[in-house]
Amino acid sequence: MTGRVTIAGLGPGAEDLVTPQVSAALAEATDVVGYIPYVKRVAPRDGLTLHATDNRVEVERAAHALDMAAEGRRVVVVSSGDPGVFAMAAAVFEALEAGPAAWREIEIDVLPGITAMLAASARAGAPLGHDFCAINLSDNLKPWELIEKRLRLAVEGDFAMAFYNPRSKSRPEGFGRALALLKQACGDNRPIIFARAVSTPEEHILTVPLQQATEEMADMRTVVIVGSSLTRIVERPIGNLVYTPRSVPV
Amino acid sequence: MTGRVTIAGLGPGAEDLVTPQVSAALAEATDVVGYIPYVKRVAPRDGLTLHATDNRVEVERAAHALDMAAEGRRVVVVSSGDPGVFAMAAAVFEALEAGPAAWREIEIDVLPGITAMLAASARAGAPLGHDFCAINLSDNLKPWELIEKRLRLAVEGDFAMAFYNPRSKSRPEGFGRALALLKQACGDNRPIIFARAVSTPEEHILTVPLQQATEEMADMRTVVIVGSSLTRIVERPIGNLVYTPRSVPV
Repeated sequence: MTGRVTIAGLGPGAEDLVTPQVSAALAEATDVVGYIPYVKRVAPRDGLTLHATDNRVEVERAAHALDMAAEGRRVVVVSSGDPGVFAMAAAVFEALEAGPAAWREIEIDVLPGITAMLAASARAGAPLGHDFCAINLSDNLKPWELIEKRLRLAVEGDFAMAFYNPRSKSRPEGFGRALALLKQACGDNRPIIFARAVSTPEEHILTVPLQQATEEMADMRTVVIVGSSLTRIVERPIGNLVYTPRSVPV
Repeated sequence: MTGRVTIAGLGPGAEDLVTPQVSAALAEATDVVGYIPYVKRVAPRDGLTLHATDNRVEVERAAHALDMAAEGRRVVVVSSGDPGVFAMAAAVFEALEAGPAAWREIEIDVLPGITAMLAASARAGAPLGHDFCAINLSDNLKPWELIEKRLRLAVEGDFAMAFYNPRSKSRPEGFGRALALLKQACGDNRPIIFARAVSTPEEHILTVPLQQATEEMADMRTVVIVGSSLTRIVERPIGNLVYTPRSVPV
Protein backbone atom coordinates (compact mmCIF):
# COMPACT_ATOMS: atom_id res chain seq x y z
CA MET A 1 0.00 0.00 0.00
CA THR A 2 1.27 3.47 -0.86
CA GLY A 3 0.83 6.05 1.81
CA ARG A 4 -0.30 9.58 1.19
CA VAL A 5 -1.25 12.76 2.98
CA THR A 6 -4.43 14.56 2.00
CA ILE A 7 -4.89 17.99 3.55
CA ALA A 8 -8.63 18.59 3.48
CA GLY A 9 -10.88 21.55 4.26
CA LEU A 10 -14.10 20.68 6.10
CA GLY A 11 -15.69 24.07 5.41
CA PRO A 12 -17.15 26.32 8.10
CA GLY A 13 -19.28 23.73 9.91
CA ALA A 14 -22.39 22.56 8.05
CA GLU A 15 -22.32 19.06 6.60
CA ASP A 16 -23.73 20.30 3.29
CA LEU A 17 -20.76 22.63 2.82
CA VAL A 18 -18.27 19.73 2.80
CA THR A 19 -17.30 19.04 -0.82
CA PRO A 20 -17.87 15.52 -2.20
CA GLN A 21 -14.11 15.46 -2.91
CA VAL A 22 -13.35 15.80 0.80
CA SER A 23 -16.04 13.27 1.77
CA ALA A 24 -14.48 10.75 -0.64
CA ALA A 25 -11.01 11.30 0.83
CA LEU A 26 -12.34 10.75 4.35
CA ALA A 27 -14.10 7.56 3.22
CA GLU A 28 -10.77 6.12 2.02
CA ALA A 29 -8.60 7.29 4.91
CA THR A 30 -6.93 5.00 7.43
CA ASP A 31 -6.08 7.91 9.74
CA VAL A 32 -7.48 11.38 10.37
CA VAL A 33 -5.30 13.95 12.09
CA GLY A 34 -6.33 17.39 13.34
CA TYR A 35 -7.36 19.77 16.06
CA ILE A 36 -9.91 18.22 18.46
CA PRO A 37 -13.10 20.06 17.34
CA TYR A 38 -12.38 19.40 13.66
CA VAL A 39 -11.64 15.69 14.14
CA LYS A 40 -14.94 15.46 16.04
CA ARG A 41 -16.69 16.35 12.79
CA VAL A 42 -15.45 13.11 11.17
CA ALA A 43 -17.72 10.10 11.72
CA PRO A 44 -15.89 7.15 13.34
CA ARG A 45 -15.88 3.85 11.45
CA ASP A 46 -14.02 0.52 11.41
CA GLY A 47 -10.57 0.82 9.92
CA LEU A 48 -10.27 4.53 10.65
CA THR A 49 -8.11 5.85 13.48
CA LEU A 50 -8.85 9.38 14.68
CA HIS A 51 -5.89 11.37 16.04
CA ALA A 52 -7.20 14.50 17.72
CA THR A 53 -4.66 16.91 19.15
CA ASP A 54 -4.73 20.23 20.94
CA ASN A 55 -4.25 23.59 19.26
CA ARG A 56 -0.78 25.16 18.85
CA VAL A 57 0.92 21.88 17.94
CA GLU A 58 0.39 22.25 14.20
CA VAL A 59 3.91 21.31 13.10
CA GLU A 60 4.12 18.25 15.40
CA ARG A 61 0.71 17.16 14.10
CA ALA A 62 1.92 17.61 10.53
CA ALA A 63 5.09 15.59 11.21
CA HIS A 64 2.97 12.81 12.70
CA ALA A 65 0.84 12.75 9.55
CA LEU A 66 3.91 12.56 7.30
CA ASP A 67 5.40 9.81 9.48
CA MET A 68 2.29 7.68 9.18
CA ALA A 69 2.10 8.25 5.42
CA ALA A 70 5.75 7.17 5.09
CA GLU A 71 4.68 3.91 6.72
CA GLY A 72 2.05 3.41 4.04
CA ARG A 73 -1.05 4.85 5.69
CA ARG A 74 -3.61 7.05 3.97
CA VAL A 75 -3.72 10.07 6.23
CA VAL A 76 -6.19 12.94 6.00
CA VAL A 77 -5.21 16.11 7.84
CA VAL A 78 -8.39 18.06 8.52
CA SER A 79 -8.79 21.82 8.87
CA SER A 80 -11.97 23.79 9.19
CA GLY A 81 -12.65 26.10 6.26
CA ASP A 82 -10.00 25.90 3.57
CA PRO A 83 -6.70 24.23 4.54
CA GLY A 84 -4.70 26.85 2.63
CA VAL A 85 -6.14 29.89 4.44
CA PHE A 86 -4.62 30.31 7.92
CA ALA A 87 -4.82 26.55 8.43
CA MET A 88 -2.94 23.26 8.21
CA ALA A 89 -1.52 23.19 4.67
CA ALA A 90 1.33 25.61 5.39
CA ALA A 91 2.11 23.74 8.63
CA VAL A 92 2.45 20.45 6.73
CA PHE A 93 4.83 22.06 4.22
CA GLU A 94 6.89 23.57 7.05
CA ALA A 95 7.23 20.11 8.60
CA LEU A 96 8.02 18.61 5.19
CA GLU A 97 10.81 21.12 4.56
CA ALA A 98 12.38 20.48 7.96
CA GLY A 99 11.97 16.70 7.85
CA PRO A 100 13.83 13.74 6.32
CA ALA A 101 14.43 13.67 2.56
CA ALA A 102 12.29 10.54 2.22
CA TRP A 103 9.20 12.55 3.10
CA ARG A 104 9.57 14.42 -0.20
CA GLU A 105 8.48 11.27 -2.04
CA ILE A 106 5.15 11.09 -0.22
CA GLU A 107 2.13 12.00 -2.35
CA ILE A 108 0.46 15.07 -0.88
CA ASP A 109 -2.84 16.57 -1.99
CA VAL A 110 -4.57 19.69 -0.79
CA LEU A 111 -8.37 19.66 -1.12
CA PRO A 112 -9.92 23.13 -0.94
CA GLY A 113 -12.87 23.99 1.28
CA ILE A 114 -15.30 26.84 1.91
CA THR A 115 -13.26 29.24 4.01
CA ALA A 116 -15.02 31.21 6.77
CA MET A 117 -14.95 34.59 5.03
CA LEU A 118 -16.80 33.23 1.98
CA ALA A 119 -19.50 31.63 4.13
CA ALA A 120 -19.79 34.82 6.19
CA SER A 121 -19.91 37.00 3.11
CA ALA A 122 -22.67 34.84 1.62
CA ARG A 123 -24.77 35.19 4.78
CA ALA A 124 -24.41 38.97 4.81
CA GLY A 125 -24.91 39.51 1.08
CA ALA A 126 -21.74 40.18 -0.92
CA PRO A 127 -19.46 42.44 1.13
CA LEU A 128 -16.39 40.92 -0.58
CA GLY A 129 -17.90 41.59 -4.01
CA HIS A 130 -14.90 43.61 -5.10
CA ASP A 131 -11.13 43.65 -4.31
CA PHE A 132 -10.43 42.52 -0.76
CA CYS A 133 -7.73 41.43 1.71
CA ALA A 134 -7.69 38.55 4.17
CA ILE A 135 -5.65 39.26 7.29
CA ASN A 136 -4.95 37.04 10.29
CA LEU A 137 -5.20 39.32 13.34
CA SER A 138 -3.32 36.91 15.62
CA ASP A 139 0.13 38.13 16.59
CA ASN A 140 1.21 34.70 17.82
CA LEU A 141 3.37 34.22 14.72
CA LYS A 142 4.05 37.75 13.48
CA PRO A 143 4.77 41.15 15.01
CA TRP A 144 1.77 43.32 15.84
CA GLU A 145 3.39 46.21 13.96
CA LEU A 146 3.04 44.26 10.72
CA ILE A 147 -0.68 43.73 11.36
CA GLU A 148 -1.14 47.48 11.87
CA LYS A 149 0.86 48.24 8.74
CA ARG A 150 -1.29 45.89 6.67
CA LEU A 151 -4.49 47.35 8.09
CA ARG A 152 -3.38 50.87 7.18
CA LEU A 153 -2.39 49.86 3.65
CA ALA A 154 -5.63 47.93 3.15
CA VAL A 155 -7.61 51.02 4.15
CA GLU A 156 -5.46 53.24 1.91
CA GLY A 157 -6.15 50.91 -1.02
CA ASP A 158 -9.88 50.92 -0.15
CA PHE A 159 -9.99 47.13 -0.06
CA ALA A 160 -12.80 45.34 1.72
CA MET A 161 -11.21 43.32 4.53
CA ALA A 162 -11.78 39.95 6.16
CA PHE A 163 -10.16 39.28 9.52
CA TYR A 164 -9.45 35.80 10.85
CA ASN A 165 -8.67 35.05 14.53
CA PRO A 166 -9.68 38.53 15.65
CA ARG A 167 -9.60 37.81 19.36
CA SER A 168 -8.84 35.01 21.79
CA LYS A 169 -8.47 34.61 25.54
CA SER A 170 -4.69 34.73 25.25
CA ARG A 171 -4.78 37.84 23.04
CA PRO A 172 -7.58 40.01 24.44
CA GLU A 173 -6.22 43.46 23.51
CA GLY A 174 -5.19 43.28 19.86
CA PHE A 175 -8.64 43.46 18.33
CA GLY A 176 -9.50 46.60 20.27
CA ARG A 177 -6.36 48.23 18.89
CA ALA A 178 -7.28 47.11 15.36
CA LEU A 179 -10.78 48.53 15.73
CA ALA A 180 -9.45 51.86 17.01
CA LEU A 181 -7.09 52.05 14.04
CA LEU A 182 -9.88 51.26 11.57
CA LYS A 183 -12.31 53.76 13.11
CA GLN A 184 -9.70 56.46 12.79
CA ALA A 185 -8.36 55.47 9.36
CA CYS A 186 -11.69 54.81 7.65
CA GLY A 187 -13.35 57.94 8.98
CA ASP A 188 -16.68 57.05 7.44
CA ASN A 189 -19.27 54.76 8.90
CA ARG A 190 -18.96 51.77 6.66
CA PRO A 191 -20.52 48.44 7.72
CA ILE A 192 -18.62 45.90 9.80
CA ILE A 193 -19.92 42.34 10.01
CA PHE A 194 -19.26 39.99 12.91
CA ALA A 195 -20.00 36.48 11.70
CA ARG A 196 -19.74 33.87 14.44
CA ALA A 197 -19.82 30.12 13.86
CA VAL A 198 -21.33 30.51 10.39
CA SER A 199 -23.42 27.55 9.19
CA THR A 200 -23.49 25.91 12.64
CA PRO A 201 -26.40 25.90 15.15
CA GLU A 202 -24.55 28.66 17.05
CA GLU A 203 -24.42 30.97 14.03
CA HIS A 204 -24.79 34.64 14.86
CA ILE A 205 -24.39 37.47 12.35
CA LEU A 206 -24.21 41.07 13.52
CA THR A 207 -23.78 44.06 11.20
CA VAL A 208 -23.16 47.50 12.71
CA PRO A 209 -21.71 50.78 11.53
CA LEU A 210 -17.94 50.67 12.11
CA GLN A 211 -18.01 53.52 14.63
CA GLN A 212 -20.34 51.46 16.85
CA ALA A 213 -18.24 48.29 16.80
CA THR A 214 -16.77 47.06 20.09
CA GLU A 215 -14.15 44.42 20.70
CA GLU A 216 -16.59 42.21 22.66
CA MET A 217 -18.49 41.62 19.41
CA ALA A 218 -15.76 39.17 18.31
CA ASP A 219 -14.38 35.98 19.82
CA MET A 220 -12.20 33.16 18.52
CA ARG A 221 -15.08 31.68 16.49
CA THR A 222 -15.81 34.97 14.69
CA VAL A 223 -14.67 36.12 11.28
CA VAL A 224 -14.97 39.88 10.83
CA ILE A 225 -15.61 41.64 7.52
CA VAL A 226 -15.20 45.39 7.00
CA GLY A 227 -16.55 46.93 3.82
CA SER A 228 -14.72 49.30 1.51
CA SER A 229 -15.80 52.94 1.27
CA LEU A 230 -18.24 51.87 -1.47
CA THR A 231 -19.93 49.05 0.45
CA ARG A 232 -23.69 49.57 0.61
CA ILE A 233 -26.64 48.35 2.64
CA VAL A 234 -29.86 47.34 0.89
CA GLU A 235 -32.68 47.85 3.38
CA ARG A 236 -35.41 45.22 3.25
CA PRO A 237 -38.39 44.36 5.45
CA ILE A 238 -37.06 40.78 5.58
CA GLY A 239 -33.50 41.70 6.62
CA ASN A 240 -30.84 43.99 5.22
CA LEU A 241 -28.16 42.94 2.75
CA VAL A 242 -24.61 44.27 2.63
CA TYR A 243 -22.73 44.35 -0.65
CA THR A 244 -19.74 45.92 -2.35
CA PRO A 245 -20.55 46.98 -5.93
CA ARG A 246 -18.53 45.64 -8.82
CA SER A 247 -17.90 49.12 -10.21
CA VAL A 248 -15.72 51.92 -8.94
CA PRO A 249 -16.72 55.33 -10.33
CA VAL A 250 -13.94 57.08 -12.24
CA MET B 1 -45.78 28.88 -4.28
CA THR B 2 -43.32 31.39 -2.87
CA GLY B 3 -40.61 32.44 -5.23
CA ARG B 4 -37.00 32.86 -4.26
CA VAL B 5 -33.61 33.64 -5.71
CA THR B 6 -30.65 31.46 -4.75
CA ILE B 7 -27.28 32.73 -5.90
CA ALA B 8 -25.07 29.66 -6.05
CA GLY B 9 -21.38 29.04 -6.62
CA LEU B 10 -20.58 26.03 -8.79
CA GLY B 11 -16.90 25.99 -7.82
CA PRO B 12 -14.03 26.02 -10.30
CA GLY B 13 -15.25 23.23 -12.59
CA ALA B 14 -15.05 19.71 -11.16
CA GLU B 15 -18.31 18.05 -10.15
CA ASP B 16 -16.84 16.91 -6.82
CA LEU B 17 -16.11 20.50 -5.84
CA VAL B 18 -19.81 21.47 -5.99
CA THR B 19 -21.14 21.57 -2.42
CA PRO B 20 -24.14 19.36 -1.54
CA GLN B 21 -25.93 22.59 -0.56
CA VAL B 22 -25.67 23.89 -4.12
CA SER B 23 -26.64 20.52 -5.62
CA ALA B 24 -29.78 20.50 -3.42
CA ALA B 25 -30.71 24.02 -4.54
CA LEU B 26 -30.35 23.04 -8.19
CA ALA B 27 -32.50 19.94 -7.62
CA GLU B 28 -35.35 22.13 -6.36
CA ALA B 29 -35.05 24.95 -8.89
CA THR B 30 -37.64 25.77 -11.52
CA ASP B 31 -35.24 28.08 -13.38
CA VAL B 32 -31.49 28.43 -13.69
CA VAL B 33 -30.02 31.71 -14.88
CA GLY B 34 -26.40 32.44 -15.77
CA TYR B 35 -23.58 32.91 -18.21
CA ILE B 36 -23.66 30.28 -20.99
CA PRO B 37 -20.68 28.09 -19.91
CA TYR B 38 -21.89 27.97 -16.29
CA VAL B 39 -25.48 27.08 -17.18
CA LYS B 40 -24.06 24.28 -19.36
CA ARG B 41 -22.75 22.69 -16.17
CA VAL B 42 -26.32 22.19 -14.88
CA ALA B 43 -27.96 18.92 -15.99
CA PRO B 44 -31.27 19.47 -17.81
CA ARG B 45 -34.36 17.80 -16.34
CA ASP B 46 -38.14 17.99 -16.60
CA GLY B 47 -39.54 21.02 -14.80
CA LEU B 48 -36.31 23.00 -15.04
CA THR B 49 -35.87 25.86 -17.50
CA LEU B 50 -32.32 26.88 -18.31
CA HIS B 51 -31.76 30.57 -19.16
CA ALA B 52 -28.24 30.98 -20.53
CA THR B 53 -27.10 34.48 -21.43
CA ASP B 54 -23.99 36.08 -22.76
CA ASN B 55 -21.33 37.75 -20.64
CA ARG B 56 -21.52 41.47 -19.75
CA VAL B 57 -25.26 41.44 -19.16
CA GLU B 58 -25.00 40.66 -15.47
CA VAL B 59 -27.50 43.24 -14.21
CA GLU B 60 -30.11 42.39 -16.86
CA ARG B 61 -29.68 38.72 -15.98
CA ALA B 62 -30.09 39.53 -12.30
CA ALA B 63 -33.25 41.56 -12.98
CA HIS B 64 -34.66 38.65 -14.97
CA ALA B 65 -34.02 36.33 -12.03
CA LEU B 66 -35.75 38.70 -9.60
CA ASP B 67 -38.68 39.11 -11.99
CA MET B 68 -39.22 35.37 -12.21
CA ALA B 69 -38.93 34.97 -8.42
CA ALA B 70 -41.54 37.71 -7.95
CA GLU B 71 -43.84 35.55 -10.08
CA GLY B 72 -43.34 32.65 -7.68
CA ARG B 73 -40.54 30.73 -9.37
CA ARG B 74 -37.56 29.17 -7.58
CA VAL B 75 -34.65 30.67 -9.45
CA VAL B 76 -31.01 29.69 -9.06
CA VAL B 77 -28.47 32.18 -10.39
CA VAL B 78 -25.26 30.29 -11.08
CA SER B 79 -21.71 31.61 -10.98
CA SER B 80 -18.50 29.68 -11.30
CA GLY B 81 -16.37 29.70 -8.17
CA ASP B 82 -17.95 31.63 -5.32
CA PRO B 83 -20.83 33.96 -6.22
CA GLY B 84 -19.54 36.64 -3.85
CA VAL B 85 -16.05 36.90 -5.37
CA PHE B 86 -16.08 38.88 -8.64
CA ALA B 87 -19.29 37.14 -9.64
CA MET B 88 -23.09 37.37 -9.69
CA ALA B 89 -24.06 38.14 -6.07
CA ALA B 90 -23.11 41.83 -6.25
CA ALA B 91 -24.89 42.12 -9.64
CA VAL B 92 -28.11 40.75 -8.15
CA PHE B 93 -27.94 43.25 -5.29
CA GLU B 94 -27.29 46.11 -7.72
CA ALA B 95 -30.41 45.10 -9.65
CA LEU B 96 -32.37 44.71 -6.42
CA GLU B 97 -31.43 48.21 -5.26
CA ALA B 98 -32.42 49.77 -8.57
CA GLY B 99 -35.61 47.73 -8.96
CA PRO B 100 -39.22 47.92 -7.70
CA ALA B 101 -39.83 47.94 -3.93
CA ALA B 102 -41.70 44.62 -4.17
CA TRP B 103 -38.44 42.87 -5.03
CA ARG B 104 -37.21 43.59 -1.50
CA GLU B 105 -39.68 41.02 -0.16
CA ILE B 106 -38.20 38.21 -2.24
CA GLU B 107 -36.22 35.64 -0.24
CA ILE B 108 -32.62 35.67 -1.46
CA ASP B 109 -29.88 33.24 -0.42
CA VAL B 110 -26.24 33.22 -1.37
CA LEU B 111 -24.60 29.77 -1.35
CA PRO B 112 -20.81 29.91 -1.21
CA GLY B 113 -18.55 27.95 -3.53
CA ILE B 114 -14.88 27.10 -3.97
CA THR B 115 -13.48 30.22 -5.58
CA ALA B 116 -10.72 29.86 -8.19
CA MET B 117 -7.88 31.18 -6.05
CA LEU B 118 -8.50 28.55 -3.36
CA ALA B 119 -8.56 25.72 -5.89
CA ALA B 120 -5.42 27.11 -7.55
CA SER B 121 -3.66 27.57 -4.22
CA ALA B 122 -4.48 23.97 -3.26
CA ARG B 123 -2.99 22.67 -6.49
CA ALA B 124 0.23 24.63 -6.02
CA GLY B 125 0.63 23.95 -2.30
CA ALA B 126 -0.33 26.81 0.01
CA PRO B 127 0.84 30.09 -1.55
CA LEU B 128 -2.04 31.94 0.19
CA GLY B 129 -1.04 30.45 3.55
CA HIS B 130 -0.67 33.86 5.12
CA ASP B 131 -2.23 37.34 4.65
CA PHE B 132 -3.28 37.93 1.05
CA CYS B 133 -5.25 40.18 -1.31
CA ALA B 134 -7.65 39.27 -4.10
CA ILE B 135 -7.69 41.79 -6.95
CA ASN B 136 -9.75 41.84 -10.14
CA LEU B 137 -7.37 42.99 -12.88
CA SER B 138 -10.16 43.91 -15.29
CA ASP B 139 -10.54 47.64 -15.82
CA ASN B 140 -13.98 47.27 -17.39
CA LEU B 141 -15.62 48.59 -14.21
CA LYS B 142 -12.88 50.56 -12.49
CA PRO B 143 -10.06 52.88 -13.50
CA TRP B 144 -6.70 51.25 -14.29
CA GLU B 145 -4.99 53.72 -11.94
CA LEU B 146 -6.84 52.13 -9.00
CA ILE B 147 -5.59 48.69 -10.00
CA GLU B 148 -2.01 49.98 -10.06
CA LYS B 149 -2.47 51.69 -6.71
CA ARG B 150 -3.77 48.49 -5.14
CA LEU B 151 -0.92 46.46 -6.61
CA ARG B 152 1.65 48.86 -5.17
CA LEU B 153 0.01 48.85 -1.73
CA ALA B 154 -0.30 45.04 -1.74
CA VAL B 155 3.43 44.75 -2.49
CA GLU B 156 4.26 47.37 0.17
CA GLY B 157 2.26 45.35 2.72
CA ASP B 158 3.99 42.15 1.57
CA PHE B 159 0.69 40.41 0.99
CA ALA B 160 0.49 37.35 -1.22
CA MET B 161 -1.80 38.25 -4.14
CA ALA B 162 -4.43 36.48 -6.23
CA PHE B 163 -5.49 38.06 -9.51
CA TYR B 164 -8.79 37.34 -11.21
CA ASN B 165 -9.53 38.19 -14.86
CA PRO B 166 -5.89 38.94 -15.61
CA ARG B 167 -6.27 39.17 -19.36
CA SER B 168 -8.92 38.96 -22.06
CA LYS B 169 -9.13 39.58 -25.78
CA SER B 170 -10.74 42.97 -25.18
CA ARG B 171 -8.11 43.97 -22.61
CA PRO B 172 -4.83 42.58 -23.92
CA GLU B 173 -2.39 45.18 -22.47
CA GLY B 174 -3.31 45.56 -18.79
CA PHE B 175 -1.75 42.36 -17.55
CA GLY B 176 1.62 43.21 -19.13
CA ARG B 177 1.55 46.54 -17.31
CA ALA B 178 0.68 44.79 -14.05
CA LEU B 179 3.53 42.33 -14.51
CA ALA B 180 6.01 45.12 -15.24
CA LEU B 181 4.89 46.95 -12.10
CA LEU B 182 5.24 43.81 -9.98
CA LYS B 183 8.68 42.91 -11.38
CA GLN B 184 9.90 46.38 -10.51
CA ALA B 185 8.15 46.71 -7.13
CA CYS B 186 8.90 43.22 -5.79
CA GLY B 187 12.53 43.28 -6.83
CA ASP B 188 13.12 39.73 -5.68
CA ASN B 189 12.34 36.61 -7.63
CA ARG B 190 9.34 35.29 -5.75
CA PRO B 191 7.16 32.59 -7.38
CA ILE B 192 4.20 33.44 -9.61
CA ILE B 193 1.64 30.75 -10.36
CA PHE B 194 -0.51 30.69 -13.49
CA ALA B 195 -3.42 28.35 -12.79
CA ARG B 196 -5.62 27.80 -15.80
CA ALA B 197 -8.99 26.01 -15.73
CA VAL B 198 -8.25 24.42 -12.36
CA SER B 199 -10.03 21.11 -11.72
CA THR B 200 -11.19 20.77 -15.35
CA PRO B 201 -9.73 18.49 -18.05
CA GLU B 202 -7.93 21.58 -19.43
CA GLU B 203 -6.17 22.31 -16.15
CA HIS B 204 -2.66 23.68 -16.52
CA ILE B 205 -0.52 24.95 -13.65
CA LEU B 206 2.70 26.83 -14.33
CA THR B 207 4.98 28.22 -11.63
CA VAL B 208 7.90 30.46 -12.64
CA PRO B 209 10.08 33.04 -10.93
CA LEU B 210 8.34 36.42 -11.22
CA GLN B 211 11.12 37.91 -13.36
CA GLN B 212 10.50 35.21 -15.99
CA ALA B 213 6.74 35.71 -16.18
CA THR B 214 5.24 36.90 -19.47
CA GLU B 215 1.77 38.17 -20.21
CA GLU B 216 1.05 35.28 -22.61
CA MET B 217 1.11 32.92 -19.63
CA ALA B 218 -2.38 34.15 -18.65
CA ASP B 219 -5.71 34.17 -20.44
CA MET B 220 -9.31 34.71 -19.36
CA ARG B 221 -9.50 31.26 -17.76
CA THR B 222 -6.40 31.82 -15.61
CA VAL B 223 -6.14 32.89 -11.99
CA VAL B 224 -2.70 34.22 -11.10
CA ILE B 225 -1.10 33.98 -7.65
CA VAL B 226 2.01 35.91 -6.65
CA GLY B 227 3.75 34.98 -3.40
CA SER B 228 4.85 37.35 -0.68
CA SER B 229 8.56 37.94 -0.07
CA LEU B 230 8.48 34.95 2.32
CA THR B 231 6.87 32.46 -0.07
CA ARG B 232 9.02 29.35 -0.46
CA ILE B 233 9.42 26.45 -2.86
CA VAL B 234 9.82 22.92 -1.51
CA GLU B 235 11.72 20.94 -4.13
CA ARG B 236 10.59 17.34 -4.54
CA PRO B 237 11.33 14.59 -7.07
CA ILE B 238 7.54 14.24 -7.55
CA GLY B 239 6.88 17.94 -8.18
CA ASN B 240 7.62 21.13 -6.29
CA LEU B 241 5.28 22.75 -3.78
CA VAL B 242 4.86 26.49 -3.20
CA TYR B 243 3.82 27.77 0.20
CA THR B 244 3.78 30.90 2.33
CA PRO B 245 4.79 30.19 5.93
CA ARG B 246 2.46 31.02 8.79
CA SER B 247 5.17 32.93 10.64
CA VAL B 248 6.81 36.25 9.93
CA PRO B 249 10.18 36.66 11.67
CA VAL B 250 10.36 39.64 14.01
